[in-house]
Amino acid sequence: MSNYKVKFLPDDKNVEVAEGATLLEAAEKADIYINSLCGGEGLCGECRLQVISGKARADKNAIGFFSKEEIENGYVLACQTKVEDNLEAVVPAKSHLEKEKIVTEGVSLIYSEPESISLYKRPTDPASFFEPLVSKVYLELREPTLDDNIADIDRITRELSKKTRYSSFEISLACLQNLAAKLRQHKWHVTATVARHNGIGRILQIEGGDTTNQNYGLAVDVGTTTVVVQLVNLKTGKVIGVEGSHNRQARYGEDVISRMVFACSRGGLEPVHEAVIANINTLTQALSREKGIDTKDITSIVAAGNTTMSHFLLGLMPCSIRLEPYVPTATIYPQITARDIGIDINPQGILEVMPSVASYVGGDIVAGALACGLADKQEVQCLVDVGTNGEIAVGNNDWIVCCSASAGPAFEGEGSKWGMRATKGAMEKIEIKDGQVTYETIGKAKPRGICGSGLIDAIYELARNKVIGQDGKFNLSPDGRRIIVEDNEPQYILAFPEETETGQAITISESEIGNLIKSKGAVFAAMKSLTDYVGLTFDQLNIIYVAGGFGSSLDIPKAVAIGLLPDVDTSKIQFIGNSSIMGARMALLSTPAFEKAVNIAKKTTNIELSNYLPFMDEFMAALFLPHTDTSLFSSVHY
Amino acid sequence: MSNYKVKFLPDDKNVEVAEGATLLEAAEKADIYINSLCGGEGLCGECRLQVISGKARADKNAIGFFSKEEIENGYVLACQTKVEDNLEAVVPAKSHLEKEKIVTEGVSLIYSEPESISLYKRPTDPASFFEPLVSKVYLELREPTLDDNIADIDRITRELSKKTRYSSFEISLACLQNLAAKLRQHKWHVTATVARHNGIGRILQIEGGDTTNQNYGLAVDVGTTTVVVQLVNLKTGKVIGVEGSHNRQARYGEDVISRMVFACSRGGLEPVHEAVIANINTLTQALSREKGIDTKDITSIVAAGNTTMSHFLLGLMPCSIRLEPYVPTATIYPQITARDIGIDINPQGILEVMPSVASYVGGDIVAGALACGLADKQEVQCLVDVGTNGEIAVGNNDWIVCCSASAGPAFEGEGSKWGMRATKGAMEKIEIKDGQVTYETIGKAKPRGICGSGLIDAIYELARNKVIGQDGKFNLSPDGRRIIVEDNEPQYILAFPEETETGQAITISESEIGNLIKSKGAVFAAMKSLTDYVGLTFDQLNIIYVAGGFGSSLDIPKAVAIGLLPDVDTSKIQFIGNSSIMGARMALLSTPAFEKAVNIAKKTTNIELSNYLPFMDEFMAALFLPHTDTSLFSSVHY
Repeated sequence: MSNYKVKFLPDDKNVEVAEGATLLEAAEKADIYINSLCGGEGLCGECRLQVISGKARADKNAIGFFSKEEIENGYVLACQTKVEDNLEAVVPAKSHLEKEKIVTEGVSLIYSEPESISLYKRPTDPASFFEPLVSKVYLELREPTLDDNIADIDRITRELSKKTRYSSFEISLACLQNLAAKLRQHKWHVTATVARHNGIGRILQIEGGDTTNQNYGLAVDVGTTTVVVQLVNLKTGKVIGVEGSHNRQARYGEDVISRMVFACSRGGLEPVHEAVIANINTLTQALSREKGIDTKDITSIVAAGNTTMSHFLLGLMPCSIRLEPYVPTATIYPQITARDIGIDINPQGILEVMPSVASYVGGDIVAGALACGLADKQEVQCLVDVGTNGEIAVGNNDWIVCCSASAGPAFEGEGSKWGMRATKGAMEKIEIKDGQVTYETIGKAKPRGICGSGLIDAIYELARNKVIGQDGKFNLSPDGRRIIVEDNEPQYILAFPEETETGQAITISESEIGNLIKSKGAVFAAMKSLTDYVGLTFDQLNIIYVAGGFGSSLDIPKAVAIGLLPDVDTSKIQFIGNSSIMGARMALLSTPAFEKAVNIAKKTTNIELSNYLPFMDEFMAALFLPHTDTSLFSSVHY
Repeated sequence: MSNYKVKFLPDDKNVEVAEGATLLEAAEKADIYINSLCGGEGLCGECRLQVISGKARADKNAIGFFSKEEIENGYVLACQTKVEDNLEAVVPAKSHLEKEKIVTEGVSLIYSEPESISLYKRPTDPASFFEPLVSKVYLELREPTLDDNIADIDRITRELSKKTRYSSFEISLACLQNLAAKLRQHKWHVTATVARHNGIGRILQIEGGDTTNQNYGLAVDVGTTTVVVQLVNLKTGKVIGVEGSHNRQARYGEDVISRMVFACSRGGLEPVHEAVIANINTLTQALSREKGIDTKDITSIVAAGNTTMSHFLLGLMPCSIRLEPYVPTATIYPQITARDIGIDINPQGILEVMPSVASYVGGDIVAGALACGLADKQEVQCLVDVGTNGEIAVGNNDWIVCCSASAGPAFEGEGSKWGMRATKGAMEKIEIKDGQVTYETIGKAKPRGICGSGLIDAIYELARNKVIGQDGKFNLSPDGRRIIVEDNEPQYILAFPEETETGQAITISESEIGNLIKSKGAVFAAMKSLTDYVGLTFDQLNIIYVAGGFGSSLDIPKAVAIGLLPDVDTSKIQFIGNSSIMGARMALLSTPAFEKAVNIAKKTTNIELSNYLPFMDEFMAALFLPHTDTSLFSSVHY
């Protein structure tokens, strides 16, 4: 079988593949991320490429995705096209998954957190104590004598039980095997690295001398779309760096369902598992290089993600998560040695994955519930995490119920032409007055697209200005200025070509508005169903925390006005950003917090909305701005 | 550098080694065991070989070990002689470590146990419950539904907590990784293998269907001289096979001290560690072949040995055990996956090493104390384990004290010309009357040597017949019949050439008798010191259990008469054989028994005899038959 060369433009990346490989596989090999929402099934039509030289064999079933002109110009679907010659192919900007900007631009605003929510220290709350899951303890041991000749390891644990919360310890054989020489070589001055494991102390390593200044941990948010890693100094508790990147699993499908289909059929679990490991390793290496830290001094990781992401991370088959009755392999995950799944930190360093509640209520929402103290108070609080799934948790120190609804990635900036994540150049605040659009962008750059908070603003402003009706359809006819028709549907121009970075107009179309209304409707219907289920009204919620990747801030009144959030006293609604990584970091820094997270996962009752009939009615009723039942939004007037 | 061929005779084994390798190394490579008491230091003179062709370079310091005639005939020390040519060397029978007979001959009598001591089942004693450390539990799970869609692993543990003593469980990632498919493939009928680990249940594997009939364990006695493996059916509790062999570490030194010197200096730990692993693997393979058992169905091992042997087994450096203040790395050993140290059983199968008390009071004596129920009763009991070290434990359900004294391997049949372990052909009972010697041998074979019990008989009979005095010296002059002079010292012929298997006379010499008196003196002095220490007389001991490799039986009155055991009512002395493997098997078959062993190890106080001044006086006083203080042996008359 022959090998052929494929050149990808405009990146000018060259790669050699065997005859018959698909262009999508070739692109993967060239490390080019191409949109593939359906996971390479030839169904979504997202992985468009233009072959400009050489012979490729495209599947004729893919023809439906292209105009006659496009076909003549060599447009194909990368996943349905086989390499049969040396080729040159152009990757259109739309197909090319944008390289994550926050990697090169440093800390993105999206990952900042309100100070009031970040790890607090209140002596009355045991979970607030600073007591990392893995700590280093320096020991100056007395030399053994004939009157005190207990075993070396007992000499260590005798001292450790005075200096830690643990009274018994376990130790790996590897750690024992060079212990005797190490103790004597370092004159009985050593540092023990101790992790919590099944309620007892697990000694991960013994180092010579005092190394307590070299102890770092990672809080990781494994999102469907984005992977974020925070590097934390475990001696001081301070975050010293953050990096994020696109989840590399996107090449196997944009959403969790298509990734599960990929992993459970032709593709296998391995590449999907390895993709996220590569994500974490790349981000960790970048962080440690940047901060001058040796990765062997990273002793612990706490990762939070939805249940499917957690399964992929640990290499657990997620196939039964996808199908009724939606059963995961595990919800409380074992503590493992990170190195065992290929994460390159200290060889004995541990990985804890935040526990899940059920197949569609994951460790991310548990982390969020931990971060906002849902289980701490007698008052009933609510957490709404708007990601690709909308996840809602309601509860107090006695009980927690939660549910999940597919919201689509609209508010994360996916699935619309100009939607983007909340990185530099994203329009995050928009106002329309007298036909004039004013806006703010992240980093005060020229606009490159619109992030979640901008989209909420846009819909609200369009409705307030009667550009669209409360059904989301355009009221006004095209005027040739802001309102135009493209691809057979009305669009509103939010930024003219001369204002933008790309020189193209940034628009929002009727169908995109429709998608956003479906997303907000799903989130609201889930909140309504869940509160109804427990017999509460929205007013009885003491506070509503809103988490998600909307942007650096969220205009709460506008979010209420479009019907995403309920019409309550807006001072009771608080936007907290990425609560998943916040909770992961709390667990990393506080053993009692980690234990509390396990308790939250165990005590939370999951309500399967697919099983709960009123949900569909609620969803249908919510497909309106703000809602078909105006009595629910009595303070909202357009 | 050239390679040379070395042929070893009479085995006719050929091997190729690099120039400069020693003949001892060549022999190791050829898998020929050669005596090397000193560990290859050129000190003991045991590794004599005769080079009959080719050129070797012998160290001139070794000359002292040979007569002029021997040197002319090519005799050298294998450890001090380098290969510089193709060679042929003859291994004399004396240098050649006899291949362990019990391997080929099946169950040796030495490993049998009195039924009264072997695993009992008394409902009043929690330790007597049959409840293996690793058990297989068959589960018929209900299929998940939307109303009962807990995680797969939770479905398993929910059922396991009903069927086992555990309420919480840990599971390895490897075990989770294929769980979902396995459960569905086998229609929710699976077998869980569960081990006790830090007080909770550790799920080692999940197999499809009912495999509870395939669950085996190994009880292993890692003796300094001999390694014995019992294969146990963990469903029935029955021993289904036993194999034993010479400890292959002997090539690195005959006793623990020289092996420690080897491991802590030139040789390194690795070969000593690997030798005992190879022992266990060879014996296990032989047993499983013989019994038609797949080694992957062996799920657990409990090994007992002295502290140094336990360290070697686990690959822990024993260097500080040897030197004051005698500190081991650990006395309570971690549960490990046997495969991690190269033991070839089920990949998830566990190894527990019986806990030790101190550097010279090991897991073998703890196992023995468990086996004879030392901690079970209010009455004070005593265990005397006569091995290369004599180890004594005295105690009851409240307290236990113990000590250890170097006894030498005399009673295990080592260190004398015709001494042998209690295998086929060993003279185990000897009587002398009117100058006539009558004897019994193991397996009723022609005599090949004398085992421990035979040596005790021989000394007693020689003294009773006034052949030797109570100081162990020959009274009678050589008579040319039974009493002869050889190698410049008097010898007594116990079997004439025409009676024996080898056609050589089996003798016992004055210096050998002296060594045996030293050994018995050390054991008695240790017992006396320990009972004095706790303020007890021998009469206050409720029972004295005697363990060790003497033979299939031990003539208690004769053992008392030579002063090995104290002069108490002999009905209170009970010989129990190999109590180490008995205790290991109890722990293997009973989790409460294993837990009790840990408690025994923790609550036992070790008395360092090297630190206890009266011991040396006791030892000097005991170098007489039966003792210099005749009031201690008032019932003994020669």
